[in-house]
Amino acid sequence: MEKRNETTIALRRIGTIRTPYREAEGTPIQPVFGAGVEGTVDVFEEFAEGLVDLEGFERVWLIYWLDRAGPAELFVVPYRDASPHGVFATRAPSRPSPIGLSVVRLLERRGSTLRVADVDILDNTPLLDIKPYVPRFDAHPQSRAGWFDTTRADRRVADKRFHRD
Amino acid sequence: MEKRNETTIALRRIGTIRTPYREAEGTPIQPVFGAGVEGTVDVFEEFAEGLVDLEGFERVWLIYWLDRAGPAELFVVPYRDASPHGVFATRAPSRPSPIGLSVVRLLERRGSTLRVADVDILDNTPLLDIKPYVPRFDAHPQSRAGWFDTTRADRRVADKRFHRD
Repeated sequence: MEKRNETTIALRRIGTIRTPYREAEGTPIQPVFGAGVEGTVDVFEEFAEGLVDLEGFERVWLIYWLDRAGPAELFVVPYRDASPHGVFATRAPSRPSPIGLSVVRLLERRGSTLRVADVDILDNTPLLDIKPYVPRFDAHPQSRAGWFDTTRADRRVADKRFHRD
Repeated sequence: MEKRNETTIALRRIGTIRTPYREAEGTPIQPVFGAGVEGTVDVFEEFAEGLVDLEGFERVWLIYWLDRAGPAELFVVPYRDASPHGVFATRAPSRPSPIGLSVVRLLERRGSTLRVADVDILDNTPLLDIKPYVPRFDAHPQSRAGWFDTTRADRRVADKRFHRD
């Protein structure tokens, strides 16, 4: 028998993401819509050595826990469309495993603190992982993108629909 | 006081990734090095509705638990270089939070099963999340990539260094 979703995956928080955004409403829904907005990533001291040489990268992936996302919904009307789609065909935060993924620009590293730009993340978000952005691995500029390619909606900031109060 | 890494983040497994790779040694280290190799993603039935409309996307992000990664190491000699770097400046699996991130090509969706290509993932890997690949959000082809831009190593498959036996 296949193991089902009672399997709990325990991961470690490695730090905290600080941004100007205290609530979902008005927060950019993707880094591209938060262009130029700065934040900081405070990595716990015990993990600081893991950041050595990160400063050579123009962009980094932040992987984080969407700790204020609302309960999982499988079928959602996303911010950038008027029609519902399966949640895995959207980037909406109300996912069964609420993991956030954002590529931000890395401006500076000072010890265990990163200064970043293009943030679309709520203040005080728990950080799970950082990975370097590598265009050869991550950039597929011509990839067909389903309903995103045809939507006429151009919403760039969140409202309250996917978050707890 | 800042909360430290004793915070445990509980996430839900949503399915299983099936691939031809039974052990780390010989497994491609990135999707680009597994081009054409096919796998399947079996999403648990209770989450199947969340896949509606995913078939419109040429590529999807798989976010998964690196369940056979070795213990976290903060300073590693990665597969594609001869010098050590901080683990967060590499894509090595031996991370404090062992989360894997792979962009794979989506060939077909049949109900709750996805047929995918360009896999770099071990067989029977627990799946945590699926997100659509959206070039406007995810593609930065000119992004400077630190030591990856200057390395002379061209290793494309893993060995045993970052995994448990």
